[in-house]
Amino acid sequence: MSLDRLLDDFEAGRITREQLKREMSGSAFIDVGCAKLDHHRAERTGGPEVVYCEGKSPDQVAVIFDRLLRANGRVLGTRAGREHFEAVSGLDNARFDPVSRLITAGSSAVDLEGKVVVVSAGTSDTPVAEEAAGTAEFLGSFVVRHFDCGVAGIHRLFSVMGEINDASVIIAVAGMEGALPSVIGGLALPPIVAVPTSVGYGANFQGLAPLLTMMNSCAPGVGVVNIDNGFGAGYLAHKINMLALGGGQRTERA
Amino acid sequence: MSLDRLLDDFEAGRITREQLKREMSGSAFIDVGCAKLDHHRAERTGGPEVVYCEGKSPDQVAVIFDRLLRANGRVLGTRAGREHFEAVSGLDNARFDPVSRLITAGSSAVDLEGKVVVVSAGTSDTPVAEEAAGTAEFLGSFVVRHFDCGVAGIHRLFSVMGEINDASVIIAVAGMEGALPSVIGGLALPPIVAVPTSVGYGANFQGLAPLLTMMNSCAPGVGVVNIDNGFGAGYLAHKINMLALGGGQRTERA
Amino acid sequence: MSLDRLLDDFEAGRITREQLKREMSGSAFIDVGCAKLDHHRAERTGGPEVVYCEGKSPDQVAVIFDRLLRANGRVLGTRAGREHFEAVSGLDNARFDPVSRLITAGSSAVDLEGKVVVVSAGTSDTPVAEEAAGTAEFLGSFVVRHFDCGVAGIHRLFSVMGEINDASVIIAVAGMEGALPSVIGGLALPPIVAVPTSVGYGANFQGLAPLLTMMNSCAPGVGVVNIDNGFGAGYLAHKINMLALGGGQRTERA
Amino acid sequence: MSLDRLLDDFEAGRITREQLKREMSGSAFIDVGCAKLDHHRAERTGGPEVVYCEGKSPDQVAVIFDRLLRANGRVLGTRAGREHFEAVSGLDNARFDPVSRLITAGSSAVDLEGKVVVVSAGTSDTPVAEEAAGTAEFLGSFVVRHFDCGVAGIHRLFSVMGEINDASVIIAVAGMEGALPSVIGGLALPPIVAVPTSVGYGANFQGLAPLLTMMNSCAPGVGVVNIDNGFGAGYLAHKINMLALGGGQRTERA
Amino acid sequence: MSLDRLLDDFEAGRITREQLKREMSGSAFIDVGCAKLDHHRAERTGGPEVVYCEGKSPDQVAVIFDRLLRANGRVLGTRAGREHFEAVSGLDNARFDPVSRLITAGSSAVDLEGKVVVVSAGTSDTPVAEEAAGTAEFLGSFVVRHFDCGVAGIHRLFSVMGEINDASVIIAVAGMEGALPSVIGGLALPPIVAVPTSVGYGANFQGLAPLLTMMNSCAPGVGVVNIDNGFGAGYLAHKINMLALGGGQRTERA
Amino acid sequence: MSLDRLLDDFEAGRITREQLKREMSGSAFIDVGCAKLDHHRAERTGGPEVVYCEGKSPDQVAVIFDRLLRANGRVLGTRAGREHFEAVSGLDNARFDPVSRLITAGSSAVDLEGKVVVVSAGTSDTPVAEEAAGTAEFLGSFVVRHFDCGVAGIHRLFSVMGEINDASVIIAVAGMEGALPSVIGGLALPPIVAVPTSVGYGANFQGLAPLLTMMNSCAPGVGVVNIDNGFGAGYLAHKINMLALGGGQRTERA
Amino acid sequence: MSLDRLLDDFEAGRITREQLKREMSGSAFIDVGCAKLDHHRAERTGGPEVVYCEGKSPDQVAVIFDRLLRANGRVLGTRAGREHFEAVSGLDNARFDPVSRLITAGSSAVDLEGKVVVVSAGTSDTPVAEEAAGTAEFLGSFVVRHFDCGVAGIHRLFSVMGEINDASVIIAVAGMEGALPSVIGGLALPPIVAVPTSVGYGANFQGLAPLLTMMNSCAPGVGVVNIDNGFGAGYLAHKINMLALGGGQRTERA
Amino acid sequence: MSLDRLLDDFEAGRITREQLKREMSGSAFIDVGCAKLDHHRAERTGGPEVVYCEGKSPDQVAVIFDRLLRANGRVLGTRAGREHFEAVSGLDNARFDPVSRLITAGSSAVDLEGKVVVVSAGTSDTPVAEEAAGTAEFLGSFVVRHFDCGVAGIHRLFSVMGEINDASVIIAVAGMEGALPSVIGGLALPPIVAVPTSVGYGANFQGLAPLLTMMNSCAPGVGVVNIDNGFGAGYLAHKINMLALGGGQRTERA
Repeated sequence: MSLDRLLDDFEAGRITREQLKREMSGSAFIDVGCAKLDHHRAERTGGPEVVYCEGKSPDQVAVIFDRLLRANGRVLGTRAGREHFEAVSGLDNARFDPVSRLITAGSSAVDLEGKVVVVSAGTSDTPVAEEAAGTAEFLGSFVVRHFDCGVAGIHRLFSVMGEINDASVIIAVAGMEGALPSVIGGLALPPIVAVPTSVGYGANFQGLAPLLTMMNSCAPGVGVVNIDNGFGAGYLAHKINMLALGGGQRTERA
Repeated sequence: MSLDRLLDDFEAGRITREQLKREMSGSAFIDVGCAKLDHHRAERTGGPEVVYCEGKSPDQVAVIFDRLLRANGRVLGTRAGREHFEAVSGLDNARFDPVSRLITAGSSAVDLEGKVVVVSAGTSDTPVAEEAAGTAEFLGSFVVRHFDCGVAGIHRLFSVMGEINDASVIIAVAGMEGALPSVIGGLALPPIVAVPTSVGYGANFQGLAPLLTMMNSCAPGVGVVNIDNGFGAGYLAHKINMLALGGGQRTERA
Repeated sequence: MSLDRLLDDFEAGRITREQLKREMSGSAFIDVGCAKLDHHRAERTGGPEVVYCEGKSPDQVAVIFDRLLRANGRVLGTRAGREHFEAVSGLDNARFDPVSRLITAGSSAVDLEGKVVVVSAGTSDTPVAEEAAGTAEFLGSFVVRHFDCGVAGIHRLFSVMGEINDASVIIAVAGMEGALPSVIGGLALPPIVAVPTSVGYGANFQGLAPLLTMMNSCAPGVGVVNIDNGFGAGYLAHKINMLALGGGQRTERA
Repeated sequence: MSLDRLLDDFEAGRITREQLKREMSGSAFIDVGCAKLDHHRAERTGGPEVVYCEGKSPDQVAVIFDRLLRANGRVLGTRAGREHFEAVSGLDNARFDPVSRLITAGSSAVDLEGKVVVVSAGTSDTPVAEEAAGTAEFLGSFVVRHFDCGVAGIHRLFSVMGEINDASVIIAVAGMEGALPSVIGGLALPPIVAVPTSVGYGANFQGLAPLLTMMNSCAPGVGVVNIDNGFGAGYLAHKINMLALGGGQRTERA
Repeated sequence: MSLDRLLDDFEAGRITREQLKREMSGSAFIDVGCAKLDHHRAERTGGPEVVYCEGKSPDQVAVIFDRLLRANGRVLGTRAGREHFEAVSGLDNARFDPVSRLITAGSSAVDLEGKVVVVSAGTSDTPVAEEAAGTAEFLGSFVVRHFDCGVAGIHRLFSVMGEINDASVIIAVAGMEGALPSVIGGLALPPIVAVPTSVGYGANFQGLAPLLTMMNSCAPGVGVVNIDNGFGAGYLAHKINMLALGGGQRTERA
Repeated sequence: MSLDRLLDDFEAGRITREQLKREMSGSAFIDVGCAKLDHHRAERTGGPEVVYCEGKSPDQVAVIFDRLLRANGRVLGTRAGREHFEAVSGLDNARFDPVSRLITAGSSAVDLEGKVVVVSAGTSDTPVAEEAAGTAEFLGSFVVRHFDCGVAGIHRLFSVMGEINDASVIIAVAGMEGALPSVIGGLALPPIVAVPTSVGYGANFQGLAPLLTMMNSCAPGVGVVNIDNGFGAGYLAHKINMLALGGGQRTERA
Repeated sequence: MSLDRLLDDFEAGRITREQLKREMSGSAFIDVGCAKLDHHRAERTGGPEVVYCEGKSPDQVAVIFDRLLRANGRVLGTRAGREHFEAVSGLDNARFDPVSRLITAGSSAVDLEGKVVVVSAGTSDTPVAEEAAGTAEFLGSFVVRHFDCGVAGIHRLFSVMGEINDASVIIAVAGMEGALPSVIGGLALPPIVAVPTSVGYGANFQGLAPLLTMMNSCAPGVGVVNIDNGFGAGYLAHKINMLALGGGQRTERA
Repeated sequence: MSLDRLLDDFEAGRITREQLKREMSGSAFIDVGCAKLDHHRAERTGGPEVVYCEGKSPDQVAVIFDRLLRANGRVLGTRAGREHFEAVSGLDNARFDPVSRLITAGSSAVDLEGKVVVVSAGTSDTPVAEEAAGTAEFLGSFVVRHFDCGVAGIHRLFSVMGEINDASVIIAVAGMEGALPSVIGGLALPPIVAVPTSVGYGANFQGLAPLLTMMNSCAPGVGVVNIDNGFGAGYLAHKINMLALGGGQRTERA
C-alpha cells in the first residue's frame, strides 16, 4: 500500500531488493504450521484476524491465540467450546462466555463508542444475538441489547423503537419466519444488519426461511449476513458504527 | 350418504338394483368427454365445482360451463383468458374481470353475508387479492378490501386494523418477504388465511420465500394456501365465514 | 384500542401524560429478563401467549410459567421435555403428556365446546396429532380423535366420514405423501387445517413432501400449517371452532 | 449375446475375424451422421429405439425416421411438433396426434393385447395421459382410458375402480398434489406406474410436488417415472403387460 | 366389491341392514387402539398390510403383530430394531434379519415362484438390497441376488447379464450417482424397479442424486421407488413377477 | 412519534380529538385507490417511498408519480419500462435511463456528498450496478463506478483498490460465482454491500450461486441484498454513507 | 511477475517510478469503457481472454473484438447470436458456427496437436459438445468427435472405446441422467472432463440431475464443469492436453 | 481389449472356448462374497481399485484388503476409522493417518514424480486436503502442500503463487464460499481440480455453497469433484500429473 515509501526505502538503500520483493509479494503473515496468521489484517481491513474455533483442536487454538496475542495484544475466538477455553485459559485476561461461545484474551477495548442496538425476536435467538453484541464490543463499539421483541407481540418492539432509532446501526436477529428486520426497516432511520437464525422447526429448514425473508425485505436499508452468523453481524455493524463517529473511514486514512 | 333412503327405495321397489348400484358406486357426475363434472360437489363439500380454465381450450370451457350452468344455475371459472370468456359470453349473465381473471355466469348470490376482509401488502398483489375476493363473493360472502398495507409502512395497516378485527376471517395476501400475516397474526382476533404471491424478484424464487415465511409465522392462527392461489383462499375463507353466521355447518345438516 | 377511554381518562386527569404515553406506546408486557411476556395477547388475538419450551433452559421455563400463571391463571407449554416439567411441577395443577410433549398448569378450561375432529394418517403421526388435540382442548374446544385413517386403506377413513362431517373444523395430520387432506377435502363440508409431518423416509425430506402435497391440494378448503406444527393447527382450529359457536368473533366484540 | 453362434461361424470360416470383432465390439448400429441408430434395441430390450423429436431439426428427424423405418418397419416419435411431422409426412402411413404430440409411421401393431388402464386426475393432464396411452398402443398393448378421476371428487374414481382392477397394469397420471396413485394403490390389485405432471401452479414447482408425493406413496406397488414422461410410463407398462400375457419374458427367450 | 352378493344376502335376509351397511361403509378393519389394521388388504391389493416398525414402540409392534398374525397367519415387519424383535420373539416362527431389518412371523410362503433378480451397485447398498429381496421372498417370489455390480467395473455387471435377462423383473439398487438402472435398462428385456440409496457423500444429498438420476434414465422401462425403500421395490417387483406366472391378475379374478 | 407535540396541540385545542386519533392511528398516507402512498417515509426512515414499476400499469405509475411528486418534490421509479416513462414524461424534469431502468422526476439532489464506490465483476452486471449507482445518487450520495473488475483478472481490481479503500462504503456487484465481495472484503477498510446478480448460466440458478457465495464470505464486513437488487444496495449504501458525513443519524435527531 | 526485470529497468532509469507502479499495480489491461480487456491473460494462465457474447450488445462485442484482435491476433467469442456476428463480420477471417454459437476471428491455430476426444450421449447434446470441441480447437488442440454414444445403447460407446482410450483427455457430454462419464470412468485411462447439459425434461431440472450424477460418479478420474458449459470443458481439456505434449507446463516456463 | 491376442490363443488352441468366453464376458474379478474385487482396474483405468471403508464392517475391510494386497501388492483405503485399521494392522507395512483417514498397506510407490500442488483455504479444510495429497502420493505423484491460503488474506496466496504455477496440476480445497479456485484460476497456468468442503455454517448447506461457486467459476480451467472428496481430487490430479511426465497416456500404451 505505502508503495512509495517502500520504493523510497529501496532507492535510499534502506531495504534490499529481497526485502522489497517480500513486502510486495505479501509475505506479511506468521506461519505457525497449521495456519498462516494474518496479523496485519486490522490495518488493512479495520478488524483483526478472529479465530474460528469450531473444527480446530484445542492445541491448534492455543498456538494461534498465543501468536496473535503477541502480535496484536488482544484476541477474539468464536464458536468456542469449553475445551478450547481450557487450552487458552492461562493467557492474559482470558474469558469465556458460554452463551455466545466467545473467548477473549488480552487487553480490553479502551472505550466503547458510538451506538449499536441489537434487537432479537425471541429468547431462543439469544446465543446469536450475544455473539453479535460481544463481537461488536470486542472491536470497540458501545452496544445496547433489546431481546424478545418479535412481531407476534409487536408492541414490545414499539416500546423500544425510540431507542432503536437512536442507534448508528441496528442488528436485527430473528429465526422462525424472520419478519423482524422488514418491520424495523419500515420504521427506522439507521441501516440494519439482519441475521437469520436456525431457530424454528419444520419448514424453517435450518434458517433458510428467515434468510429468504430477509433477502426479500420489502423495506430497504437491510443487509443480510449468514444464518446464525452473529460474529459477521457484529463485525459489519462495528464498521458502520465507526463511520458515524465523525472520524469514519476517511479521517483514519487522512 | 342417505344410504338408508336409498335402501328404503330399493326395498320398496321404487328403484332397481341397477339404479341402487349406480348411486352407491358414485356415478353422480356428468361425463362430457373431456371431463367428469362433479355437479353434486356443493352438497357434499359446501362449494360447487369451479372451472380451472388455464390449460383448457375455449371449446372445452364452453362445454363445461354450459353443463354446469344447467346443473347448478351458476358457474365460476378461474385463471381465465379473454379467449375463454368469448367462448362463454353468450351464456346467461356472463361476466369477465380481467384483473382477477374470473368468469362468472348465471344467477348472482342473493345476499352477501358475514364479513371477509382481504388485506394485501402491495399494489402488485392486487390480481391475487381480487381472485380471493371475487371467489368469496361468488360463493356468498360479504367482502371488504384493504390493499397496499404492507409492513414497509406499517401505519397503513394500523389505520385499518379496527376494521380488520371486525371480520369473521381475514385473507392476507403478500409477496416479497410475506411478513404481513405474521404481523396481523399478532394483532388480530379472527383466523387468517395467508396467500403467498410470486410478486418479487431474485431470491423470492417465484413465491417460495413468502410461502416459507407464512408457514413459519411466529404468530399462530394462520393457515396457508398455495402461491398465488387467490381462489383457494377465497374458498376457504368463505367456509369459515359461513360458520360464523350462526347456522354454520351444523345447522345445515340438522 | 380503547383509545377513547384512555383520552377520557387523560382529559379527566385520571392518568398522567406519562401513563397515557406508556399505554399507547405498548408497554403492556412483563419483562422477566430473558423474555418479554405478552400477557394481554388473549385479549388481543383470542389466544394467550404459549411457551415454546424447546431451546429454553428449565430455569427460564420456570420463570415464564410462574409469571404467566399469575397473570392469566393458566399456562400451556409446548415441545417440552421432562426436565422442563420438573422445573414447573410444583405449580398448581401442573401436568405433562409425554406423547404430545405439552405441559399445562393452572385452572382447566371450564367447558369444552363446539367440535374439532383430528384425523391422522398413521400411528407414527400420533405425537403431532395429540399436540394439535391437546392445544385445542386447552383453549376450550371439544375434540374428537380418529387416528390411523390413511389413504392406503381408505375405507378406514370412510368409516368415520360421517363423524368427520359433523365437525366445525377438521385437523388432518399426515406424513409420507400427505394425501389425506386432499381426499378429505373432496368429501367434507367443514374447513380443513392440514398438518404435514416429518414421518417418512427418503424423499420425504423431513416433511417437505407432504407440505408440498397439502399446498397443492386439488380440493379447496384446506389451509396448511408448518411441518409437525400440531400446536399451530390446534390454535387455528380453535379459532374457527369458536366462530361456529353462535357468538363467534362478532358477539365477543359487540 | 449369441456368442456361441458367432464363434461357430468364425470357426467354420463363415465370418472373418474382422466381422467377428465388429459384431462383438458392438458395431450393430446405423450411423446417420447426427445420430447412431440402435436398430437392434427391440431384440435386446423388448422395445424399439424411439425418436425424441424435441430439440432435433425436422431434417434430422426425417433422416432418422427414414432409416429406422427401413430397419424396423415402423417408427414412433415423441414430443413432436407439426414441423417435425411435415418432414416425415411422406412416409408410409405417417400420422400425427397434436394432443399427445406422437408421430407414428409404418405398419400398425397387428393386435393390441392384454390390458393397460390409463387413469388421469384432471382434464389438463390429458396430453401426458395420451402420450402414455399412444406409446403403449404403438408397442402392442390394448389400452383403456379413464380421464378426470381426481381425488377432489373421489366417487368418479370409484365408479371405474372395477374396470381399473381388471387391468394387468395401471398408469396413473396426476399433477397438482398427485395423490391419485396413493389412493389407487390402496384399492387396486395390479402394479401401478405413476406419472407426475407439471400441471398446477405455485408450489407445484413444475411437477416436483406430485413427484415427491408419488415417491412417498404410503401404499406400495407404485413405480414412478419422470415428470410429464408419458412415453416412459407407456413403455414400462407395456413391458409389464406383456409379462401377463402368458408368454411373458421367459417364453420369448425359450 | 361383491356388491351383488351382499345385496343377494340382504334380499334373502341372510344379513341385516346394519350388517349390509357396515360392510359397504368399509368397517372391515381391526381397531387395536393405536392402529386400525387393514386385514383384508391382501384380498384387495394382492399384498397384506406390512408393519413399519420405525417410530412405533415395541409394545405397539407386539399388539399389531399379534392381531395380524391371527388374522392373516403370517406377518412382515420392516425397519425393525432388535427391541422390536424381542417384543414379538415369542410368536410362532418369529425371525429377525439384522441386515435387512426385517421381522417375519408365522407360516412361510409355500413355494417361491417366478424369478426376481436383485442387482446392487456396491457392498454398502446391501441393507437396502436385502430388504427388497426379503420382502419379495416373504410375498412368495423366487429371488436371485447379484451384489456389487456397479458401473465403475462394468464387466462385473456383464458377467451376470445373462442371468439378469432371465428374470421376470429386475430390482436395481444403487447409491452414489445411481447409474446402474440406466445401464441395465439399455441391455435388459425385463421391466426394472429402481431403488436409489442414501449411500454416498457430499452432493449425494442423502439419496437425492441417484433419485434424480433414475427418474431421468435415458433408457425406458424403469420405475422408481423412494430412497432406501427396499420394501417398496420388493413389493412392486413381486406384483409384476406374479403377472408373469401365467395366472397373473386376470386368472385370480376369473 | 412527536407524540408530545400532538398532545400539546390537543391540550391547547389546536387539534380535535378526531385529528389526534387520525394522526396517532397512522392515517398519514395518501390513498390513490390502487395504492396507499407513504409520503412521510423519508422523515421516518431516511429515504422516500420509491415506485417499483414492474407489474404496475402505466396509468397506475402516472397517478403515483404525480401524487408523490407533489408531496415530496422528487420521485424515483425502479424496474421501469419505456411505457412507464411515457406515462410520466410530462412531469417536471422527468428522465429515463434504459440501462438501469430508473425513472427520476422533479428536482435533483442539490449536492452529492460522501463517497460510494460501485465495483462490478463483469460487463453483464452493468444494469444492476447502474441501478445501485443511480439510486444512491438520487438519494444524495456521490458515487464512483469501477466496472468489469472480476477475479478472473484480479489485477484489474488491484488497479482500483486504492480508490475503493477511499470510499465510505463499497457496493460489490457480481454474478457467476460471485467471489468479488469476498476478495474485496479481505483487502478493504469500508463496509461492503454485496449484490448477487442472475448473470451466468447453468448451475448459477438465477443468482442462487452468487447469493450463497456472498452469504458465506470468509471475509467479514459484508452485508448482502437480494439478487439483482441494485436499488436495495444503493439505498443501504446511501444510509451508511450519510453516517460518515459527520452529521450521521444522531445529529439529525439532535 | 517478472518483477526482477521491472526493477532492473527502474534502477537503470529505463522506466519511471510511475511506470513501475502502474505495471506492478496491475494496469496491464485495455479499458474500452464498457470492459477492461485482460490482454495478458494467455501469458498468465495459458489461455487468452474469451468474449462471452450473451447479454452484451453487438456494439459492445464489436469494440471488444476489435481491441482483442489487435492485441492478440485472434479472438474467440462464445454464446454468440447472428446479430453479434454481423457486428464483427468485417474483421479478418471472421467466422460463425450457429450450432456451437462460436465466433472466431483472426489467424487460425497453426497446428492442432495432441488428442482430445469429445464423447456425447445424444444428438441433442451436440451444441454443447461442439462448443467444447470448437474451443479446444481454437486454443490449438486436435479434437476427435464421437456423438450419440449414450448408455441406453452402450455398445455404441464400446465401439469407440479404443479410440477414446487413445486420447490425452476425454470430454464427456451428457444430459438426461448423465451416466456417461461414470461408465467411461470405469473403462478409460485418460482423465475425464464431464459436462452436464440441460437436455431432458421434468426432474432433469435444467441440468441439475446430470450435474449431481457427475459429481457423485462412482468411478474416479472425473472433473465436472458447469451445466452446458462446453467452453469451460474445452478450455480445461486443452490445458490438460498441452501437458501431455512433452513440453507441458514446465517446459513453457523453463 | 487385447482381443486379437485372445483370438490368437483360441485359434492356436492355447485356451478353450470357455476360457475365451469368460475373458470376453468380463469375469476378471475376484468374488469375495460381500464384494466383487476389480483387480484389473489399474491396467484398465490407470488406477487400482480403492477401498471405501465407511459403511463396511472391519471384517469386510479385512477380507477385501487381504485379497487386493495379494493381487496388486499394495492397497489404499479411504474414510477409514481406527476400527478398520485394527482389522488390517497385521498386513505388511500397514499404516493409518487419522487426519486424512487413509489406510495404506503393502509396498510404497517407488518414486514420487511430477508435481501436484495442494492449496487449501483454511485450517479446517486440512482433512480433505490431506486425503487428496495422500491419495496422489499413494498413486505415485510428488505432492507439495500449501494450506490456509484463503482469500480473506489473499497475500498469503500470492506468497506461494510462484510455486503453485510450477505445478503440473493444482488441487484447490475450500469451504465457506469456496472462492479460492476462481482466484487461482485467474492467475495460474496449470489445470485446477477444485474440491468444495462442507466446512462452514448456515447457508453453506453442507458444502452446497462452495460447490456452486466452483461450478460457476468465472475463470476457466477448473474441474470440480464432489464435496469433501479429497480422494477423487487426488486421483484425478495424479492422472493429469502423469500426462505431464513425458510418457503420458500415449507412451504407456505404445
